[in-house]
Amino acid sequence: MLLSKLLGERFKEKPAEASMISHIFLLRGGYVRQVATGIYSLLPPAKRIVAKIEQIIREEMDNIDGQEVLFPVVMPAELWQESGRYESVGSELLRMKDRNGHSLLLGMTHEEASVHMARTEATSYTKFPFMIYQIQTKFRDEPRARGGLIRVREFTMKDAYSFHTTQEDLAEYYQQCHEAYEKIFRRAGFSNIVSVESDTGMMGGSLAHEFMLISEGGEDNLVLCPACQYRANVEVSAVKPSHTERPEGTPSLHHTPGMTTIEDLYEFFKIDKSQTLKAAVFAVEGQEKPIVVFLRGDYDVNEAKLRRVVGANVFPYAGNEEDDLCFGFIGPHGLETSARVFFDASLMGENDLVSGANQKDYHYTGINVTKECLGKSFPEEFYDLAKARQGDPCPACGHTTDLRRGIEMGNIFQLGRKYTESMDMTYVDSDGQRRHPIMGCYGIGVGRMLAGAIEEHHDDYGPIWPISIAPWQIHICSLGAGKSPEVGEAARSIYDKLSARYEVLLDDRDVTAGVAFADADLLGVPLRVIVGKRGLDKGEIELVRRDKSVRVMVPLENLEAEIDAQMKALWEELGS
Amino acid sequence: MLLSKLLGERFKEKPAEASMISHIFLLRGGYVRQVATGIYSLLPPAKRIVAKIEQIIREEMDNIDGQEVLFPVVMPAELWQESGRYESVGSELLRMKDRNGHSLLLGMTHEEASVHMARTEATSYTKFPFMIYQIQTKFRDEPRARGGLIRVREFTMKDAYSFHTTQEDLAEYYQQCHEAYEKIFRRAGFSNIVSVESDTGMMGGSLAHEFMLISEGGEDNLVLCPACQYRANVEVSAVKPSHTERPEGTPSLHHTPGMTTIEDLYEFFKIDKSQTLKAAVFAVEGQEKPIVVFLRGDYDVNEAKLRRVVGANVFPYAGNEEDDLCFGFIGPHGLETSARVFFDASLMGENDLVSGANQKDYHYTGINVTKECLGKSFPEEFYDLAKARQGDPCPACGHTTDLRRGIEMGNIFQLGRKYTESMDMTYVDSDGQRRHPIMGCYGIGVGRMLAGAIEEHHDDYGPIWPISIAPWQIHICSLGAGKSPEVGEAARSIYDKLSARYEVLLDDRDVTAGVAFADADLLGVPLRVIVGKRGLDKGEIELVRRDKSVRVMVPLENLEAEIDAQMKALWEELGS
Repeated sequence: MLLSKLLGERFKEKPAEASMISHIFLLRGGYVRQVATGIYSLLPPAKRIVAKIEQIIREEMDNIDGQEVLFPVVMPAELWQESGRYESVGSELLRMKDRNGHSLLLGMTHEEASVHMARTEATSYTKFPFMIYQIQTKFRDEPRARGGLIRVREFTMKDAYSFHTTQEDLAEYYQQCHEAYEKIFRRAGFSNIVSVESDTGMMGGSLAHEFMLISEGGEDNLVLCPACQYRANVEVSAVKPSHTERPEGTPSLHHTPGMTTIEDLYEFFKIDKSQTLKAAVFAVEGQEKPIVVFLRGDYDVNEAKLRRVVGANVFPYAGNEEDDLCFGFIGPHGLETSARVFFDASLMGENDLVSGANQKDYHYTGINVTKECLGKSFPEEFYDLAKARQGDPCPACGHTTDLRRGIEMGNIFQLGRKYTESMDMTYVDSDGQRRHPIMGCYGIGVGRMLAGAIEEHHDDYGPIWPISIAPWQIHICSLGAGKSPEVGEAARSIYDKLSARYEVLLDDRDVTAGVAFADADLLGVPLRVIVGKRGLDKGEIELVRRDKSVRVMVPLENLEAEIDAQMKALWEELGS
Repeated sequence: MLLSKLLGERFKEKPAEASMISHIFLLRGGYVRQVATGIYSLLPPAKRIVAKIEQIIREEMDNIDGQEVLFPVVMPAELWQESGRYESVGSELLRMKDRNGHSLLLGMTHEEASVHMARTEATSYTKFPFMIYQIQTKFRDEPRARGGLIRVREFTMKDAYSFHTTQEDLAEYYQQCHEAYEKIFRRAGFSNIVSVESDTGMMGGSLAHEFMLISEGGEDNLVLCPACQYRANVEVSAVKPSHTERPEGTPSLHHTPGMTTIEDLYEFFKIDKSQTLKAAVFAVEGQEKPIVVFLRGDYDVNEAKLRRVVGANVFPYAGNEEDDLCFGFIGPHGLETSARVFFDASLMGENDLVSGANQKDYHYTGINVTKECLGKSFPEEFYDLAKARQGDPCPACGHTTDLRRGIEMGNIFQLGRKYTESMDMTYVDSDGQRRHPIMGCYGIGVGRMLAGAIEEHHDDYGPIWPISIAPWQIHICSLGAGKSPEVGEAARSIYDKLSARYEVLLDDRDVTAGVAFADADLLGVPLRVIVGKRGLDKGEIELVRRDKSVRVMVPLENLEAEIDAQMKALWEELGS
């Protein structure tokens, strides 16, 4: 490819709309252009990278006996009504009507389509297990599209669906798929992706993992234990709070005018946050009464965990006049309410706390959770509802954990029979009985991998593409070819020779070295061959790796051998 | 791949909903399943074929310097408002609203998206010419989805867009693209595809060709001249009517009660249809007055041609009371009307015709077109408005033409500046002036090629896939492996050996020869290797080509050499 003909302008300025590194370089390097909010076109370099990512994914899916299929982008509402998700999924599912007024939707995931396909084709146990996958465009009407290709509305995804007759078989395949994912990310040059336990969310099912690229630009919070490899999304991470032994206190009432926050309290009483007891109130979807969660003042409620305990969506709730709750001053001692009340595990065995007194402008000190709270009108149970914090003890081994941000690259789910039961997919088992198969599903965001690769591999000047997904492998700069035609000829001859074995981009423009190198940095091709007048006069060519770890002058006659050696090294370094 | 694990049931019965050969075999062979009207999922064998078709297309597009990109499936209304097509295209364009009430649409073609991409990236003449293409899902809310993958609503298409600074450059590239298309179809095994001149329709532009698979199941009518290679879609085909010299007649009035059709007339007057003159009346979109087309009674009006002459959509019109036309008895002699009147070329020089007399239940005989029609209140011009018929003289050479049906596989258009002007894409030319580039666009339907390959290559038992797009190259049947384990072992060993060099499907099921062969016929793999007890005892394996042109017993030790030879032959026969 000649750079003079490559479609895609590159520019120096940081685009105003971008803050994430990958977003900035995707725009500056001429990789993507926005067509509408969260909807992008891919220019040729990005399309080349994406094709390589897809091919790696395809090979690894085939390696675990995946069969590639293609489901529709547009699906009839009926299909999602069968699973119940046409109603249960919110407005991120884009619904529309065709010319005959028939309800359609844009696929954001394809469990329904995969069951639709499988249920007529796999009716005997002898067909099981099997896995089908596709690589295809999806649409999710994301309210907060951001970060270039990180959170978009239209995206390309590999989604796979496996079908099994036993849970053991699913569990084993799930593990195979986990390994295939690790291999995919390694082959694509990632070394900073971890799998974490995650919420099953709208997918349903019992067990799920996300593959997270550790990155400050990420939206997810991850609990990582350096000691025992415990890894979980904060949304699901168990919390084992530290506990401070304190003697029992004696409840006594204090006038605390206008002090409705934990900050107010610990300043007023000169105590640690962890010696306070706070109340968080939530409305529950479909229920009239709110719920109250009591937890230690140094923790916050993890809404995802609360949602799972309650079994419905929850929303922070500020109260209205009809509630029998004294907002800002709610406490467990003497509370009389029709609201359901939960105690978080952080309160277990805690003594001598400050809490609301259920009357305006009053708090108690000396509240003992066991004595003053439980055994009265409240349930004798503690729930794990708190959000994990930096430095919390690891729920598995107790070691201090690390809280990091991550970008989700892929996810895997054990779905169970949620879809096969609701859509009535059955097979005849070896004993002649009809049974519902057990499913797993497995997604990878192709565009996220493209952007994630930049997040992991870049310097101040642009992306540094791993050799396995680089748009080209070699970038030839010819410097000053305008003045010295022999430079252009030499570059062209090297280009012709290398093109037989490598993907080569030739910068054939008559531009300054500054412009040529800035563009080469933005295009991020792993190996650069610099043809200049001075070197050429000495019979030498400069070889530079994009990551600047290698910079050598090579005699022209050794050029190909040296390039082969550099290429070999680049491939060997992959994902390490 | 083991057939026992392949997802996709095959069946013997002709599906009730299918009439086209390709539709029948796509369903019977386990290639596709319908998800909604005109919306299909592809099962693994179809996906394998499609991947090969796409790769052939990709290679040939790259060969003519195409740069692969990806445009969005979902586009904002604004983009199509710029070109005017948001309003001008009918309800085949699926429009919808996102969660914020913003108008979106599903891409059915991507001229707008390609200009959106190109206009910021190609601002100098030095970037030109260039061509960008994508292979991607499109949606067209087709009112008459039919024929399996022939006329669908969701489909995969390769669409390409070229940009030029001169018409000459476009014309030259158009020709290159024409040749690339011929190569694509030849490589995919087609020998029955012709390019015909075609209507530019909603795309606009000046010149267009369709690539048509000649097939009785097609929806398009094509005029083919066996003598001079004139080829055109009936929609655009010029008509050069034969002419019968007749002496002038003398107009005389006849009472013809209730005779409002040409059939009535030629039976009543005992004349040939070609001695009648008929009137066809059309309403014009956006105009109050209808138009009258006079043509010879043995021809019909080609609405596509009329539409182009009028410059607006036309619809057959049956009249109402306010019209100054005597419907059923309209004729050119003595006609006084405010309607615009056109004469078709079929009337040129015709004498002694029967025509309506512009009064109820009366016709004239002896009407001479030159004398009684023209030179009075009518324009002195003839238009080419008739629809070509089987056996008409070729408009280029006069030889008798053939009317055939065809299925459109691809199309190419010279678009001119329609989109670059409306969307204001400009570049700075070498003289410093801003100019609008000239565009071409080039489409191929991937699913149509899949279905078309079956239409061209099949027998009574299933598809006969060309080697270049076959889902597998070799299909091994092991017969009676249940009773004779050595058969299964031999088949497996052949499978392992061949899999290193070929794509092989092994039928490892314990089924009868009848079932195995019926399935093999439906899967259409070009070369079949039959491992059976009787042959094996003699040290022989049977090789059969799917098209049944070869059926040989091969000594086991020669098997690989013979397979190589057969493979070579299959590749050499491609597209011949």
